[in-house]
Amino acid sequence: MIPNAIKNFIEHFRKIPGLGPRAATRLAFFISRLDTQTRSNLIESLKNLENLERCKRCFFIKEKEQELCEICSDSRRDSRIIAIVEKDTDILTLEKPREFRGTYLILGELSGRGILEESHKNRIEQLKRRIEGEPEGNIEEIILAVNPHALGDMLYEILKRDFKHLTSHITRLGRGLPTGGEIEFADEETLKNALRRRS
Amino acid sequence: MIPNAIKNFIEHFRKIPGLGPRAATRLAFFISRLDTQTRSNLIESLKNLENLERCKRCFFIKEKEQELCEICSDSRRDSRIIAIVEKDTDILTLEKPREFRGTYLILGELSGRGILEESHKNRIEQLKRRIEGEPEGNIEEIILAVNPHALGDMLYEILKRDFKHLTSHITRLGRGLPTGGEIEFADEETLKNALRRRS
Repeated sequence: MIPNAIKNFIEHFRKIPGLGPRAATRLAFFISRLDTQTRSNLIESLKNLENLERCKRCFFIKEKEQELCEICSDSRRDSRIIAIVEKDTDILTLEKPREFRGTYLILGELSGRGILEESHKNRIEQLKRRIEGEPEGNIEEIILAVNPHALGDMLYEILKRDFKHLTSHITRLGRGLPTGGEIEFADEETLKNALRRRS
Repeated sequence: MIPNAIKNFIEHFRKIPGLGPRAATRLAFFISRLDTQTRSNLIESLKNLENLERCKRCFFIKEKEQELCEICSDSRRDSRIIAIVEKDTDILTLEKPREFRGTYLILGELSGRGILEESHKNRIEQLKRRIEGEPEGNIEEIILAVNPHALGDMLYEILKRDFKHLTSHITRLGRGLPTGGEIEFADEETLKNALRRRS
């Protein structure tokens, strides 16, 4: 009953995380109702993503013709301070307060099975080689900036063990009450961390 | 800091209802991480929506080369029974129980300002001409199958007034307790309707 073009669209777009079959169906009907120009714009902007690839230094997204990403190639950034994050969009969020002037390493999402995957281990290995390749063979600080979960805690211990000869300073993001949050409604784990890491 | 291709993608996709800037951003990064083949499939399936248009009888989506949509051209469907719905996806949902064997008219979404727009009025006019063009100039039943809201009630009164010479049977979908729902948790309006329309 549904045209094949719609079925085909749903089949391909439903696999995108956060969409699923219902959202993909609504999307298909919405896009098929658009005028030709607006739809062409969508197609073009989707095609243009083809011209992107990962920065070979930090794995953030960059244009193919660039040598490194905008952050790694910015001489005002301190490459001796490296924040380890899970994904591109975490970098966007961390950049918003304009507080951090170091560089990054994207590790890939830590989730689900609670273990470090081969891909994560490879990127950590690569970070080690990147630091060893620095003029003095060490750096100022590594900041673990992953979501607060048990695997993050484990990763922190691994970094302290494996990177101690490369930097004296291995930190992670503060844990505690979010600004605007209320003690009354904080969960036990958050309160425990807020107490332990009081300063 | 973000490549232009990503900015451009977000700019175009954020306007899609149900997406917004955050979802469009996640979508952009997700798609840029896909392998070339998977991304090509997305592009192709988006392009193919170009080959669709509206059925000139009921306004449901159809392939360009078809004369009418799958439902209107199905000889087993009773074209003398017409359900008025708001949008394509409502037809998909109404078709699921395999209960309804009539045809449809898509009116366009009734929402927001609580009034009938010019586009809705045009489609109602077109329905009138469609019925007047029938062999006997009248039909068996018009079913108003729009979401339960005040504008639907108003539309029902309009149909009763304007279509009474074309059909003796103008109905609307039942209102009352949803199957599996509990009286204890039903809102007042639902209970009122369940009582008034008891049978």
